[in-house]
Formats: sequence, structure tokens, C-alpha cells
Amino acid sequence: MIATVFVGASVDGFIARRDGGLDWLPQEPEPHGYEELMAEIDTIVFGRHTFETVLGFGGAWPYGGKRVVVLSSRPVEHEHAEHMSGEPGEIVAKLEASGATHLYVDGGITVQRFLRAGLIQRLIVTRVPVLLGDGIPLFGSLPHDVRLRHVMTRSFPSGLVQSQYEVVHQPMP
Amino acid sequence: MIATVFVGASVDGFIARRDGGLDWLPQEPEPHGYEELMAEIDTIVFGRHTFETVLGFGGAWPYGGKRVVVLSSRPVEHEHAEHMSGEPGEIVAKLEASGATHLYVDGGITVQRFLRAGLIQRLIVTRVPVLLGDGIPLFGSLPHDVRLRHVMTRSFPSGLVQSQYEVVHQPMP
Repeated sequence: MIATVFVGASVDGFIARRDGGLDWLPQEPEPHGYEELMAEIDTIVFGRHTFETVLGFGGAWPYGGKRVVVLSSRPVEHEHAEHMSGEPGEIVAKLEASGATHLYVDGGITVQRFLRAGLIQRLIVTRVPVLLGDGIPLFGSLPHDVRLRHVMTRSFPSGLVQSQYEVVHQPMP
Repeated sequence: MIATVFVGASVDGFIARRDGGLDWLPQEPEPHGYEELMAEIDTIVFGRHTFETVLGFGGAWPYGGKRVVVLSSRPVEHEHAEHMSGEPGEIVAKLEASGATHLYVDGGITVQRFLRAGLIQRLIVTRVPVLLGDGIPLFGSLPHDVRLRHVMTRSFPSGLVQSQYEVVHQPMP
């Protein structure tokens, strides 16, 4: 099984303002691979906070028939999502046992926990051409360096620059 | 006059470890534009700390006949460098009056002060394929967003990814 992170960040490395604000993201960026990624993955793993943010956008359920898992220490009830809690290693084992092959992992704290546990294989970072000066950092602290292998980079007319990396030398979860 | 920043950063946006450590930089990266930039600029503006770090590397004076200016509130004495102090706007005015046309600005705090004053026109960021988790952030806090225009991005066999930006909508210094 592999797990992919697909995240937007400012050039100075923030994924949101301190208050979570995303107003600096381009309002209608050109397609830059999200749809392709969604076609590849079978399971979405959200942190609760990110899941609630997505629900807050309103509108139709955006994930079609994908399996959606929300990680939280508290119960989560949603007709399209299932609740799990536990260490990233347990979550991955459970998902793998039930047939998941490619996870999309989303949400600051969740991504950080999976990275720390060595359970992220692929990282796609899309840089938005702005400096914010402050905000919520891309991944937060890690117990050790995580080496990456650059796979490809492409840029878009709007100024987005997207780099894809593989995580190298995974520590054991 | 224009001022260029040329800086290396981890994928998560740090220019050094907390203690200033640079051991995560590739030891012998392929040429990636530093020489070309040096050929274009006429004046190097260092913060004191960065200047002292460069001197600490030892070896021959690396800047040939370039004019080298070290910013510090305390005196700086060096046979190849001149000392200046003051606000970025004053420094730029002085340098421009004495014939400078293209500055290379180096050093975390100095870059931040020049950025805040709207005195950086060009930003070249080279991403090293590693996550550090913590360290000295790329630019530090800014009084407002700084919008960038993406000019070009190129990647290198070692995994370095270099993006060049123009600073948009400069606030008045």
C-alpha cells in the first residue's frame, strides 16, 4: 500500500494562515493534478479538523464513492465517512486488511503523524507564488530528517509550481 | 537598481537548522546558477552574521573584485569589505548613488529587512529534497503578504528544484 500527500503551500512554507485562513490560495487555479490523484486513490484519510473544514464548504459530497476515513479520538458520525482512531500504524494495517491500496492522507496533524511513523510514500507539494511571513507550517516538527527523492516538477501559467517527491529511507513505523 | 536573493531551503521551508547547521545541504551539488548570478551582480550586501559565517569557511576570498558591504550596528573591519549601517532604504540609496546597479542580498535578517522594505525585486529559491521539521524559516514574519510572479523553474539531477520569482506590487520603502 502507498499513501500520498497532496498539499498546497506558500513559497515560505505555510499551508494556512495562523487562523487557518486560505484566502491566499488562487480562487480558480488551472487543473493541477488533483483530479488525477483522486482517480488513483481508493481511500481518503482525514484528520477531524480538515474533515470538518471540508464539510463547512457545503455543497454536494465531493468524494463520490471513495472510502473516507476520519481519524479522531472522539466519535464521528457522517453518512459517507467512517470513524477510526489509533496510531497511524494500526490505521494503515486496518485499511490494508480491508482492501485499501492507495491512501490520500489530508490534514496537518494527520500528515505529520503519518510522516513521523514513516507511512507516507509520496509527497506532492504545490507552491503558490506568495510569501505569507507566518502561518501553519507545512509539516511541523519531525523526530529526524526525512530525505526525499525528486520525481518531477512542473509549473503552471498561474505561477503554481508543483513538485512530486518520494520519501526515501523510511523509518520503521 | 535591482536586488536579488538567492537562497537554498528545505522542502519544508528552512534555510538552516535551529543552531545554524547546514549539514543537510548537498556537499557537492551540480552548478545551479550561483556563478551566473555572481557574474551579473556588482555588489554583495551581507548581514554581519552571514559575513562572519562565510569568513569562517576559511580559504581564499571568494568574491573577487565585487564590492562587498556588511551591514552591522557595530564596526566591521575587513580588507575586502566595507561597513554600513542604517535602514535598508538608506543603504540602497547610498549604494545607488555610488554606482551599484545589481545587489545580491544575503543573510536571514538582512533579507527579511529588505523584503519588508519592499527592496527585493528577484527571489531565487533552490529547494533541497529533504524535510527538516524545524529550523530557521526562509524569511520570517512580514508585515503583509508579498505576492510573487513565477518566472521559471528548473530541476537538477541531484533533486534540487530552483524557482525564480519577481516580487510583485512593491510597497513603498
